[in-house]
Amino acid sequence: MKTLADAFTQTLQDVYYAEHALTKALPKVISAVSQPDLKKALQAHLDETKEQITLLDDVFSSIDQEAAGEKCEAIDGLIKETESVMDEATGKAAKHAAIVGCCQAIEHYEIARYGTLREWAKALGHAEAHEMLSQILDQEKAANHKLTHLAVTAINEA
Amino acid sequence: MKTLADAFTQTLQDVYYAEHALTKALPKVISAVSQPDLKKALQAHLDETKEQITLLDDVFSSIDQEAAGEKCEAIDGLIKETESVMDEATGKAAKHAAIVGCCQAIEHYEIARYGTLREWAKALGHAEAHEMLSQILDQEKAANHKLTHLAVTAINEA
Repeated sequence: MKTLADAFTQTLQDVYYAEHALTKALPKVISAVSQPDLKKALQAHLDETKEQITLLDDVFSSIDQEAAGEKCEAIDGLIKETESVMDEATGKAAKHAAIVGCCQAIEHYEIARYGTLREWAKALGHAEAHEMLSQILDQEKAANHKLTHLAVTAINEA
Repeated sequence: MKTLADAFTQTLQDVYYAEHALTKALPKVISAVSQPDLKKALQAHLDETKEQITLLDDVFSSIDQEAAGEKCEAIDGLIKETESVMDEATGKAAKHAAIVGCCQAIEHYEIARYGTLREWAKALGHAEAHEMLSQILDQEKAANHKLTHLAVTAINEA
């Protein structure tokens, strides 16, 4: 990794790996949840994640590169944390609150990465990639706001 | 983990572990950086992290619990990602940009966790803990804004 362009490609491969890992991890989280609004929000985010992978394919195309994932220790750690919370939580209220917390940590990871990638795309003059990455960033921010809203209006009180 | 109080304690132990891990990891990051403003910002954040550990000690005291850390896979993964970026980056510009990106991912992790913890403290009626966790949350947000500012004004352009 010598140039900003190299860092851009590598981080793009990180988030590509991360989104794929999430499409595998989220169904287990959705099964573990019984609160209807939370279940619905997570299902919607799983669908959105699959669309984001297609958008990332387009980002790779726009810079004439093959879409590829690279093992990302950060998302692996975040998913492991979520799985251990699901294993350890026996009370329903605690489980739902803890799952929302872990999902928000994952959202924040994505917000950080897409925020960085979008700025790098801009600095590198990749206008099309910048636009698509901004679109994904906005979706992640909206997903996070939805979880915050659910947490403070329904989950934590329960 | 049966109740929200249990989830609160466990997540508090997670961030306590995370802040301690960061006090060990940040000096290596600071050594790897030569850009003066970034070096200064990271040094200031290391000092702040040490103060936050003292604040977390007070949070534990305020709910009559012993301060303790619990292994947190998420921060371990985030730190590993930062270390591998430092190893792989050979160009100065790419290294600085990639380090800022990783540090922002860490900041966002902390923003997510303190955001959750603060709301849980409120839901549990722990007014003093709520206030201290809000103070740490504000510091993490400010640290993240500083890194964004550095990235878009100096680091990415270089």
